[in-house]
Amino acid sequence: MALVVQKYGGSSIGSPERIRRVAERVAATRAAGHDVVVVASAMGDTTDELLDLAHQVSRAPGSARELDMLLTSGERISNALLAIALTDLGYPACSLSGPQAGVFTTPEHGYARIVDVLPTRVRQELDRGQVVLVAGFQGLCKDTDDVTTLGRGGSDTTAVALAGALHADVCEIYTDVDGVCTADPRVVPTARLLDRVPYAQMLELAAHGAKVLMPRSVEYARRHGVVVHVRSSFTDRPGTIVADRADQEVQMEKTAVTAVAHDRAVALVSVTGVPDDDPIRPARVFRVLANAGVEVDMPVHKSTRGRVDLSFAVARGSAPAAVAALHAAADTIGFAAVTSDHNVGTVSVVGDALTADITATVCETFAALPTRIRLLTTSELRISVLCPDTELDRAVRALHEVFELSTPLTGPPATVYAGTGRGW
Amino acid sequence: MALVVQKYGGSSIGSPERIRRVAERVAATRAAGHDVVVVASAMGDTTDELLDLAHQVSRAPGSARELDMLLTSGERISNALLAIALTDLGYPACSLSGPQAGVFTTPEHGYARIVDVLPTRVRQELDRGQVVLVAGFQGLCKDTDDVTTLGRGGSDTTAVALAGALHADVCEIYTDVDGVCTADPRVVPTARLLDRVPYAQMLELAAHGAKVLMPRSVEYARRHGVVVHVRSSFTDRPGTIVADRADQEVQMEKTAVTAVAHDRAVALVSVTGVPDDDPIRPARVFRVLANAGVEVDMPVHKSTRGRVDLSFAVARGSAPAAVAALHAAADTIGFAAVTSDHNVGTVSVVGDALTADITATVCETFAALPTRIRLLTTSELRISVLCPDTELDRAVRALHEVFELSTPLTGPPATVYAGTGRGW
Repeated sequence: MALVVQKYGGSSIGSPERIRRVAERVAATRAAGHDVVVVASAMGDTTDELLDLAHQVSRAPGSARELDMLLTSGERISNALLAIALTDLGYPACSLSGPQAGVFTTPEHGYARIVDVLPTRVRQELDRGQVVLVAGFQGLCKDTDDVTTLGRGGSDTTAVALAGALHADVCEIYTDVDGVCTADPRVVPTARLLDRVPYAQMLELAAHGAKVLMPRSVEYARRHGVVVHVRSSFTDRPGTIVADRADQEVQMEKTAVTAVAHDRAVALVSVTGVPDDDPIRPARVFRVLANAGVEVDMPVHKSTRGRVDLSFAVARGSAPAAVAALHAAADTIGFAAVTSDHNVGTVSVVGDALTADITATVCETFAALPTRIRLLTTSELRISVLCPDTELDRAVRALHEVFELSTPLTGPPATVYAGTGRGW
Repeated sequence: MALVVQKYGGSSIGSPERIRRVAERVAATRAAGHDVVVVASAMGDTTDELLDLAHQVSRAPGSARELDMLLTSGERISNALLAIALTDLGYPACSLSGPQAGVFTTPEHGYARIVDVLPTRVRQELDRGQVVLVAGFQGLCKDTDDVTTLGRGGSDTTAVALAGALHADVCEIYTDVDGVCTADPRVVPTARLLDRVPYAQMLELAAHGAKVLMPRSVEYARRHGVVVHVRSSFTDRPGTIVADRADQEVQMEKTAVTAVAHDRAVALVSVTGVPDDDPIRPARVFRVLANAGVEVDMPVHKSTRGRVDLSFAVARGSAPAAVAALHAAADTIGFAAVTSDHNVGTVSVVGDALTADITATVCETFAALPTRIRLLTTSELRISVLCPDTELDRAVRALHEVFELSTPLTGPPATVYAGTGRGW
């Protein structure tokens, strides 16, 4: 008998019919003799609808505390409905709020971080033979006795954190796609479902455009050794296991490249003509951006003829904040110009022990398209290229083909992607 | 500076526009220098919509605990939205769940009773200059650490209980009518708004068809001496004060009758041919009904020729349960027949120190209609008549006229009713 944590996203429980279907899936796991803890997101568009209400009563709903009171209702509703549906199927169930489940957080409303999970009540209810449903995305700040939300990817993080605290055998993340693929199947029709992805590669994929998991929950899983199983809530396909293996995988030796990720929501920011008289000037660029909460990716530092040019990728949404912060610090940095280009995207080849040979192949592939590389960065696990966003799909397809990612690595037959086409 | 508790019903906050309007009213009270605690119900039809969802995921949503988790979200949403709207108007506000506000209850889900109110957090937030919004209708059972709901009239009871615990100066109940009238203005167009009604009379009115307040909250107010002010959330009319006066009111001496209430949701149950050999038999009738949770009103006990006939009014919805419970106990009671008539209603004349003269006037009024009286009971505060429900409106109008209830008793000009026509 295993202890299984299952997480269902908003689209998986977007209607009463889907809630009943999810209840049947949970019931099947329970009927197989396993203990089950379920973390469900808010139904479909509930969160957006509640936010819309807030904007209707206020020009600028500024109180993060009240927004959290408002938004956490969404998960309570969906989890209570799931509990009702399960009880209807003959499986006793009990829904708990984040605070009741012992999810304790920092006090930052809207983007709290989990500091502790004490699932005493969850264990009690499991011992009483109940399926336990926990409202995801929320917790309690002990200092303020206020309900908090965890921000984007919060429900995944709740599920992984609970799985860790309960020493669950597996944390199943149910979503509307079949699992983690070698590329986005909407861009690459021959993309193949991956059986297994190690944490570090999954982190790189998640951080560079793969929507199926949030980097934050992967990081939590890695740190606490939680085995994550990404599966479709609409099919019985095998899905993808995210975990490290003690033994070296045979498959991993055949090719170093696992998958190609891409991200359209990127902007290229360039700071040019920084005097090269004092190395503190370019450092100030990164300090200013860090203080403004802007994450910088693929930084390129080029020094020529007494001046330094800096370029880097940022999330497209934070580009205006980045430019504003840099202009505010113009005097201390002393740049000639700051520019931002929103018509770009990134392609990332993710794998293990990526060699210079693979970097060369990436560059040759872009040259053959031909597509101009605007930025290029490499690491052991990832080679990323920033290019015009109009070239993104062609680049993804070309790289997927050149690294032969459509070909299954070993025995098990390739799983042909047949998902719903959202995320991958 | 006063401490004011304001309660707003679901229709008063049924849309974002109405929430903004309520926020302006709260802000005006705060701007006048008063401390304000607000208890709001769920928005409009939220509770029904949530119940509908529960019925869509389950043929018979049996888990009262889960229904409570589900339904309590409604009040959290509306109170958070009110807090956001108030903050937008420049008045810092903080919404608290029932548990956060220190409302502790018995464990019965769906019909919990308040056992204690410890508003420590409410006081803290008031001291910090905040308007405090408390989710009505809900509390926490300390023994189970579960959220409970208080059942019908729960938000009124939350407001009155908080007003009592906080020693508030007044508990204002905002509703969609102008206050308590001498009769339902939909039946009696000349019905007059009452300035003031003592607790005991308000209890009688509420228990016999006046929808404006639930008996439960009036009883709580009476026991804890909370001054209740029933007002319209759509107008600035003065409303009705429910409270006892230390000094005898001049108005009260002019006539004993205060108002006429009526109730259409009534059934007449008759148990006939009970052998008159042992007085335990009729007693068993009432014991059986009490055990079945059926409230009995206007009982008439008639003994003739060795047999006893019992008749009484019950809420129409509980008539089937009453008949079933009586049939199940047929052997120990030994009746000849049990009948129930759903085509009846009650008219109640409520006042103070009602005399035999008034009883005679009531009977004469029915005789003049002519309308047959099926049951009649009298007490110091109330004379109730059960009659065919088709005769109800005529009887209410006739009694309202004969006791001259349209005529204002003293100086202040009569407030002409101009409500929205729901309840009275």
